[in-house]
Order: sequence, then C-alpha cells, then structure tokens
Amino acid sequence: MNLKIAVLSGDGIGPEVILQAKKALYAIGEVYNHEFVFEDALMGAVAIDKTGNPLPEQTLNLCLNTDAVLFGAIGDPKYDNNPEVKVRPEQGLLKLRKELGLFANIRPIKPYKALLDASPLKGEIIEGADFTIFRELTGGAYFGEKKLNEAGTHASDLCEYSEEEITRITHLAFKAAQNRRKKVTMVDKANVLETSRLWRKVVKTVSENYPDVALDFLFVDNAAMQIILNPRQFDVILTENLFGDILSDEASVITGSIGLLASASLGEKNALFEPIHGSYPQAKGKNIANPIASILSAAMLLEHFGLFKEANKVYEAVEKAIEYQVVTTDLKSDSKFGTNEVGEFVSNFI
Amino acid sequence: MNLKIAVLSGDGIGPEVILQAKKALYAIGEVYNHEFVFEDALMGAVAIDKTGNPLPEQTLNLCLNTDAVLFGAIGDPKYDNNPEVKVRPEQGLLKLRKELGLFANIRPIKPYKALLDASPLKGEIIEGADFTIFRELTGGAYFGEKKLNEAGTHASDLCEYSEEEITRITHLAFKAAQNRRKKVTMVDKANVLETSRLWRKVVKTVSENYPDVALDFLFVDNAAMQIILNPRQFDVILTENLFGDILSDEASVITGSIGLLASASLGEKNALFEPIHGSYPQAKGKNIANPIASILSAAMLLEHFGLFKEANKVYEAVEKAIEYQVVTTDLKSDSKFGTNEVGEFVSNFI
Ligand SMILES: CC(C)[C@H](C(=O)O)[C@@H](O)C(=O)O
Ligand SMILES: CC(C)[C@H](C(=O)O)[C@@H](O)C(=O)O
Repeated sequence: MNLKIAVLSGDGIGPEVILQAKKALYAIGEVYNHEFVFEDALMGAVAIDKTGNPLPEQTLNLCLNTDAVLFGAIGDPKYDNNPEVKVRPEQGLLKLRKELGLFANIRPIKPYKALLDASPLKGEIIEGADFTIFRELTGGAYFGEKKLNEAGTHASDLCEYSEEEITRITHLAFKAAQNRRKKVTMVDKANVLETSRLWRKVVKTVSENYPDVALDFLFVDNAAMQIILNPRQFDVILTENLFGDILSDEASVITGSIGLLASASLGEKNALFEPIHGSYPQAKGKNIANPIASILSAAMLLEHFGLFKEANKVYEAVEKAIEYQVVTTDLKSDSKFGTNEVGEFVSNFI
Repeated sequence: MNLKIAVLSGDGIGPEVILQAKKALYAIGEVYNHEFVFEDALMGAVAIDKTGNPLPEQTLNLCLNTDAVLFGAIGDPKYDNNPEVKVRPEQGLLKLRKELGLFANIRPIKPYKALLDASPLKGEIIEGADFTIFRELTGGAYFGEKKLNEAGTHASDLCEYSEEEITRITHLAFKAAQNRRKKVTMVDKANVLETSRLWRKVVKTVSENYPDVALDFLFVDNAAMQIILNPRQFDVILTENLFGDILSDEASVITGSIGLLASASLGEKNALFEPIHGSYPQAKGKNIANPIASILSAAMLLEHFGLFKEANKVYEAVEKAIEYQVVTTDLKSDSKFGTNEVGEFVSNFI
C-alpha cells in the first residue's frame, strides 16, 4: 500500500514522540512492503512563531490532500495565562478538526496487565476494563458563538447541536459496539441542558437500527464517578465534545499514564491520529516523554487503512516493551530508558 | 440559639436520610440548649405529583423566610428518559438556587483514615488529601437561554458569566483558602471558552487582594486527571457551575463513598445544606441509604451559624460511627446496620 501522511509534530514534546511513531511506520513499511511518504508541516505555537498563524494555509492544504494526518501535540504556556493574546495554538487544532470534518474522536481505554500497578486505582478495580470513548469533535461549545462585551465584563459561549451532527457519530458508536460487547452508554446532562435532551432523543432513534446493541444513559456527573468506581461496566461511551474532553482525560488515569493513550479523529474523507497527551513543555528535549501514545496512534492509522496484521505487530511490539520494562520514567520511576530508546526497541522489534 | 429551618426532604432516599440529620440536630439542641424549629415542605418529583410544580410557591416562601434550608435530594427516573416531559424535578432545585441567590456551592473532600480501604484509589494516593471545591451555582449553562427549534432538530444552551458573578465567589474561595493551606486552583477551559477567559482575568484581579494566597490554573480536562492522580496537591478548587458539578462528583470517589459528602450552598442572605448524593430511587425505603452525608450537612449548617463546638460534636460522632463500623453497606458490604441504626448511633453519641 502507498500512503501519503501529513506529519504535524507541533509543540513541546510533539516532535520527539512523533519521530518514534514515524520510525515504527518505516519499520512496518519495510517488513510488509508498504510505502509511507511523510510530509512535515507547521502547526501550533511553532507555526504562530514562524508565520503568525497556528494553522498556515499550506498545512491545511497538505492535510486535505493526504491520506491521513499524524499529529503530535500543541500548546505553549506563554499563550495560556495572558487574556490579551488573540492568536492561540489551540485555534489551529480546532480549525483543522473543523476543516477536515473530523467529527468523531475515538479513544480506546484498556490497561496493560503488566502495568496494573502503575495506576492510582486499585488493580481489582481496573483489571479487565476495556472501553472506547466516542467524543463528538466538531460541535458544541467549542465551535458555538463566543462573545465578550466591549467593557470586558460579560462573556458567553454558545453550545449548539443539530440532529445531523448527533446522528452521524451515533452510527459510528453503535457500529463499533456491534464489534465489541454490544453496549453504548450515552453521557449527557439531560436534566439540565437542552442540547443533552436533543442528544438523548436522537440517540434513541438511531439506536433502533441496532437492536443487538444495548443503550443506557448516564448524567455526566455520575459518569465522572462511575469511570473510577467501576470502569468495567463500560463498552462504548458516546458523548458530546466538552464532556468527552473531560471524561477521556479522566479515563486515561485508569491505564496508569496518559502517555499510553492514542486517539483517532475521523471524518467522511479525512482521518487524523494523535496521542491524547498534550505538549508537556516542561519535558521538551529531555528524552523523557513517553512515545507509546504516538506509536499507538500510528497503529490506529494502520488499522484505519485495513492493515490489521501490521497494526497488531505494532501492538505486540509495544506490549513487549512494557513487558521488558523498556519504558519511560512515567511508568517506572527508576527506568534508564528514554523516548528514543523506547522508540528504538519498538521499531527493532518490528 | 433559635433557628428556623426549612426541611425539603425531596425524593427517593431524601426523607430517610434527612430524618437522621434532624435527629442529630435535635440531640445537639438538647445538649447545648438551642432551639431548632423544623418546617417541612414539598419539593421535587413528590411536589410535582402533588401540586404540578417542583417548587411550589409555598415552599419557596418558607425558604425565603427561614434561617436555613436542609435539603435532601430530588429526581425520579420517570422524568429522565422522556423528552416529552416538560416539568422536571431538577427545575425546582435550579429555581430554588436562583431565587435564594445561592451562588456558592462548597464541597469539602477529605477521606476518613478508617476508610482509606473503601476507596477505589490506592491508600497512598489519597492519604492526607484535604480540599474544598467552590462551585459557582447560579450562572453558566445551567441558567443561560435554552433553545429548541420547532422541528426539534436543533438545540442550544448558552453559557454566560459576568464579572460580578465571578468576583463574589472568588472572594469566598480566597477567604476560605486563607484559613486553610493558602492555595486556590482555578479550573477552566480558557484555551477554548470565552467565559473561561473572563473567569481567568477576574480571578487574577481579585487574587491581588490576597497576597498570602497562591493562585494557579488548570484546564478542566487536566483537572479531571489530577484529582485522581494526585489529590493532595489541591487546597481550594474554584470553578464554574458545570465543571464544578462534574469535578465534585468525580472527587467524591476519593472518599470511598458519595454517601459521605455534604455541601453548603451560600448566598448573601440564605443558606442551604445538602448531601451531594442524589435521590437514589432504587434504595428508597430499604433502610440501606447512608445518612452520613445528610448528618454532615447538618454539621455544616451548625458551623455556618458559628456553632463550632456543636458542629465538632457531630463530626466526632460520625468519626466514631465509622471507627466502630456502624456504617451502611456502601462502606462495609457485610454490615448489619442500616440508615436508621447509623442515625441512632450518631444522635445517641451526641
Ligand atoms: C488542546 C485542546 C483544545 C484539546 C481539546 O480540548 O479538544 C485537547 O484537550 C484535546 O482533548 O484534544
Ligand atoms: C440534580 C442536578 C440538577 C444537580 C446539578 O447538576 O447541579 C446535581 O447534580 C447537583 O450537583 O446538585
């Protein structure tokens, strides 16, 4: 197979972890005879610094015309605490999601047996947990109208959803559930929010097409508890953009490190793969960032193109690295291995 | 002291747990020579069933004219999954908060030593954790304009905040921090939401009046992780309504049971005290609901009126109940004690 992949490494640890993902893909290409062509482009704070724009036109065009995007992380503290700043790295990411129509963000959560101890949760709570979060990614308060009055004393964000936006991701979630344990849990705040009530109605209607899949509902406050109290109860969680943002980061603690979690963002035509962790600027350039999330993002990319054997090889390599404790210090505080060594191990294993 | 207290027991387990809180207050009144006069009123699903209104005029008037409100829980599944329902129990609670001007919801989180094992989190993670969440309670998406188009295919919720709404709760949070470990963590999503950026600006300005208190910021997705990864890092968490709803329920898992957590909702003139758990309809009438959260709400009420000795007596009684394992089955699965027995133990101890 021939794949053209846009690589947006972004800020902070982005470039160093994405490099390891590329190495894994190169190795897969050699062993299985595929050609992966990478094209790098600017995005995030680094793009603002060089062009004034967090998502330069050129980057967007590249992404629109490649088979997939491999994305690192964006964000820089210099933009966070200064309300005067008008151009922010995050705007680039939100614009990219919107322009590529990446309406579904998919985050699998499954602890590794060898790492049960790394979790802040007790082993008996997390053992056997295995669920996937479907987060709507191009609607809700992220994209609704934002207002600030002239005096700077009154602000608002509009959260909007349409039937159509809810329908398309709901189908994806139910289809995924059919290949899993056949259960969808819709998370909302239908006792307070109008958008949540629309979600509930639409999801119910769509669910009628999937009689083999069970559907239940949880309020988001309760869901935030249940994910920690009893993560095994979940199979597929379906939710709107902001709730999905919060819950998927929360759920990441189950596995012991956010450095292990990958995600796929899918649209009608485009697909983007990224680690769920952020740019972690404090770790930049220190060879301590965990590259596994990025490497697993590459595996999700392979799966997306039907390359299941290849993806499994990557999963296997990651499992071996964990089994042999070739991991970064987030997983084993006295580890001697860094970003590079973990990446090397994985690509050599392939 | 003479106090007139409106009692809104509400739905599900509300009446049975509030009864135990009243018993504790009676006992305190006898021992310390205070007169607490209770007046019951209807609220929630039970009020809808009897009057068609989740917050009858009479209940509201009573609350406006008493010293404090003791509140149980509201909610009934028959209103949750039916989008046709137009009157919901939650509307009563939201209206009560608004009419009484209860802008600050305060939820202390502190695990009991004797219960470290009851938590899904490892003992070494939660030991020594002790923080309080200040949740804004009368603004944000809860109270902004809600819309549904006629076709029922498009919905929206408006999240709004003004400088004034942010300022008043920020002062409360900083004052509380001055009496604690002198740290406020503001939680928001300032990299995406305009309201969050306003929060950040206003909180920074207000913080200048409290040079002895440290201020830091966390994005809500990161906060959802940090609460589980390292709860000891927090002292006072300050946040908007919806984020506070999610994070305070999430934080409740630290203590091993949501049945242990009380909250105070404060306004300029009024004050309301309630357990943070819901109406838990499946447990109704079974004498299995944990009354401790309600009893602790009564203790927060005593503190609010400066009755610190009395409040401490209640805290001591609860600690003894836990120490002697006179607890409900949520805390000890083979316990022989029920709601009533735990309540009896506490009021006898007083
Ligand atoms: C960087 C930020 C805008 C983004 C989000 O909130 O969507 C991130 O937290 C994520 O989850 O991908
Ligand atoms: C019942 C519901 C409206 C309420 C809320 O979301 O505020 C509850 O969850 C709470 O936290 O007190």
